[in-house]
Amino acid sequence: MSDQVEVVEQASPEEDSAQAYKLEPKTVASVLYAVEIDDRERLIELMEPLHAADIADLLEQINPFERTKLIRLYDREFDGEILSELDDSIREEVIAILTPQVLSQAVRELDSDDVVDLIEDLEDTQQEVILGALEESDRAAVEQALSWPEYSAGRLMQREVVAAPEHWTVGQAIDHLRATPEEDLPDQFYHIVMVDPRFHPVGNVTLGKLMRSKRTTPLKELLEDTFRIIPAAQDEGEVAYAFNQYHLISAPVVDDEGRLIGVITIDDAMAVLDEEHEEDILRLAGVGEGSLSDRVTETTKQRLPWLAVNLVTAIAASMVISQFEAAIAQIVALAVLMPIVASMGGNAGTQSLTVAVRAIATKDLTGSNVWRVIRRECLVGLINGAIFAVVMGIVGVVWFGSPALGYVIAVAMVVNMVVAGLAGTGIPIILERIGVDPALASGAFVTTVTDVVGFFAFLGLAAVVLL
Amino acid sequence: MSDQVEVVEQASPEEDSAQAYKLEPKTVASVLYAVEIDDRERLIELMEPLHAADIADLLEQINPFERTKLIRLYDREFDGEILSELDDSIREEVIAILTPQVLSQAVRELDSDDVVDLIEDLEDTQQEVILGALEESDRAAVEQALSWPEYSAGRLMQREVVAAPEHWTVGQAIDHLRATPEEDLPDQFYHIVMVDPRFHPVGNVTLGKLMRSKRTTPLKELLEDTFRIIPAAQDEGEVAYAFNQYHLISAPVVDDEGRLIGVITIDDAMAVLDEEHEEDILRLAGVGEGSLSDRVTETTKQRLPWLAVNLVTAIAASMVISQFEAAIAQIVALAVLMPIVASMGGNAGTQSLTVAVRAIATKDLTGSNVWRVIRRECLVGLINGAIFAVVMGIVGVVWFGSPALGYVIAVAMVVNMVVAGLAGTGIPIILERIGVDPALASGAFVTTVTDVVGFFAFLGLAAVVLL
Repeated sequence: MSDQVEVVEQASPEEDSAQAYKLEPKTVASVLYAVEIDDRERLIELMEPLHAADIADLLEQINPFERTKLIRLYDREFDGEILSELDDSIREEVIAILTPQVLSQAVRELDSDDVVDLIEDLEDTQQEVILGALEESDRAAVEQALSWPEYSAGRLMQREVVAAPEHWTVGQAIDHLRATPEEDLPDQFYHIVMVDPRFHPVGNVTLGKLMRSKRTTPLKELLEDTFRIIPAAQDEGEVAYAFNQYHLISAPVVDDEGRLIGVITIDDAMAVLDEEHEEDILRLAGVGEGSLSDRVTETTKQRLPWLAVNLVTAIAASMVISQFEAAIAQIVALAVLMPIVASMGGNAGTQSLTVAVRAIATKDLTGSNVWRVIRRECLVGLINGAIFAVVMGIVGVVWFGSPALGYVIAVAMVVNMVVAGLAGTGIPIILERIGVDPALASGAFVTTVTDVVGFFAFLGLAAVVLL
Repeated sequence: MSDQVEVVEQASPEEDSAQAYKLEPKTVASVLYAVEIDDRERLIELMEPLHAADIADLLEQINPFERTKLIRLYDREFDGEILSELDDSIREEVIAILTPQVLSQAVRELDSDDVVDLIEDLEDTQQEVILGALEESDRAAVEQALSWPEYSAGRLMQREVVAAPEHWTVGQAIDHLRATPEEDLPDQFYHIVMVDPRFHPVGNVTLGKLMRSKRTTPLKELLEDTFRIIPAAQDEGEVAYAFNQYHLISAPVVDDEGRLIGVITIDDAMAVLDEEHEEDILRLAGVGEGSLSDRVTETTKQRLPWLAVNLVTAIAASMVISQFEAAIAQIVALAVLMPIVASMGGNAGTQSLTVAVRAIATKDLTGSNVWRVIRRECLVGLINGAIFAVVMGIVGVVWFGSPALGYVIAVAMVVNMVVAGLAGTGIPIILERIGVDPALASGAFVTTVTDVVGFFAFLGLAAVVLL
């Protein structure tokens, strides 16, 4: 009980609400000090009130040397949940540090779906070490889960399910629950899945309803309104979407024959949703994957491809500029002003693009409204382009004293911002249709278009009008 | 029961897994046709199998004219959940279309927390219409919830809670549950909250454990390990973080005196997490808010401020260029190559920036590792800068036949990419410290830095070395 009370106090309302759950730098410093002076008791005392997720965060934030020392000192206190919560890159390192005894004890504590999540990204040798540490039945369960494709519902689900035949009553279901041994039940469960004689799921009954009903009530009468069945091969992103869209709490998972083989709960779906978002944000910025705890060489390699793509597009834009060297040599003001047109187009394009990529991810951009959306984005580009055209026209006149130059930059601005709206919406849609992730690839294409069009419109028009 | 079966078939495993939950354009077309020919029966038949969330999506995807016609034809079938699921911008429009009778009936069906969520963003007059449609007790509940700050736990929670005194046994808790009238219980609940005599929450008992235990077992023995208390004034983003970090399913909400006043469940937290992510992505791209269903004028206004900021930074960069007009006039190749340096810096800066903004949001970037992260980002910039310096040096020599030009662009590239790493990490950290949302403001600052530094380093060095 003392443990409980401590946690409660930690989260009391007196705390600073804005940063209620931040790992305190003070805590980190105390932990590192305890590690430095080799004070195991103090270390354990300091770690005691921390949730496994916070310990994992702490391990990610300290440097590799401190990490190794801490883990060695912490030794047998290290539990499986911390492993589960660690970032992939750090996890491999930590597993390599743990002694075989600590590792196998840590892994045995975990549910089979957590073990799957833990090992699916590990190298083969580490996978084998962990599989070897498991009991026979758990190992079989994990291996079976791994037979489903990566990022599928089959990998995400837990295999322990509470199912009941259609014809059962409340009383029968409760008696069955009481008779089932603890280890055959999921850690947490919220529904009983009703199944037909072929073991196909036909509905969910919440525990709350079950408890409040008479023992003689047929389960059939208590079915939830919203009920979705997840095929085991379904992509986990679709699973997360379904939970979010239909407010599911848990959903049964079925094999190719439609038989119940597991259940996915909302906490797993929430974790997937979080990862997918992270991926989208990073991809939009040209950072494939990556976290703060990756090594420098790792990070450098991850970012290089996008920068290389950007270099190619930047050179393409430069080639456009080089077609107008003569014009620039005569009117240097063109060189001064040309980045403005390209930059405004790039920004407007990124705006359209981001909205389009999000709308595709949330399935709000479909066949039914594609053309309306494209028209809308072009119109927005036209209006904003016109506004900034006036501003830049005036800047051109005031700065360089040339109404013609002001006119040229104004027209180029309008053209480029309309093109930005078109490309920013059209490119992600096309990429999605041909099966390329729009979050990953749209940015490079859109900025290439806005750079090339921006420089070409401005310099080309200038060459015609001003020379 | 026929309703259930239909839903099951819809989600059967034969379906295309990649897009399992997409609203079919065919469905949308059929619905629109039914509306067009005024066939109310067919419309109701088509909408019947759709979840409220899908109907809301459909309403968002069609145009305002079709929307009005559909809603008028659908009439009394329109239910409150559809309203809940609609985008803010469309919601106001739809409420204005609904007849007072349909609206009040729709609103009365909803739980009080859904009503709060529904009306908090509405205009005052629409708020009053909806509050007026509620029953007295519901109206009081909604008004009390609205007394908590916007985006706080107090607005997010449901007020119906199942609580039990510390000294109760399993049997007492079950009897109490059975005796409580349906309407005083939450729609869905997963835990019983144990409270002390002052009504302060002290722990959670899951319904699963409750059902499986003997009637004489004290509730105290069944408490869950992980338990967090949420102050009602806490920001909803922190609430979502806590659910995600600590794998909570539900958590009690307390008032300033620490008394239990409500409960937040994971599905609400998931919705918040989703919104926060959406906001982050859009802000990073300079789209404050906004969805596909906003009007053109609305969207134009939302995007204008960011474009205006970008114009100012672009002009600042142009002013740097104009300092070197003489150099450019002599060597036009400088004008051709200079956008490459700025563009590579901008991209590298955006990469660092996005990783930093994410790490701040997930609380992985803290006082303990700030300097290490900044050092790391600069080092990544240095390595990638060096690689692209070599490439660009060669391009410079091959394209313009000038080794000196190749040398200048190479050095400028390295300088700008190290600065990009520094600015991309440092600027979001500083903004966060002074209380500005780094997702919203970092982009403009970082690209200003990389543009200015890029042009200055390249042109300045060229002026010194080449003239």
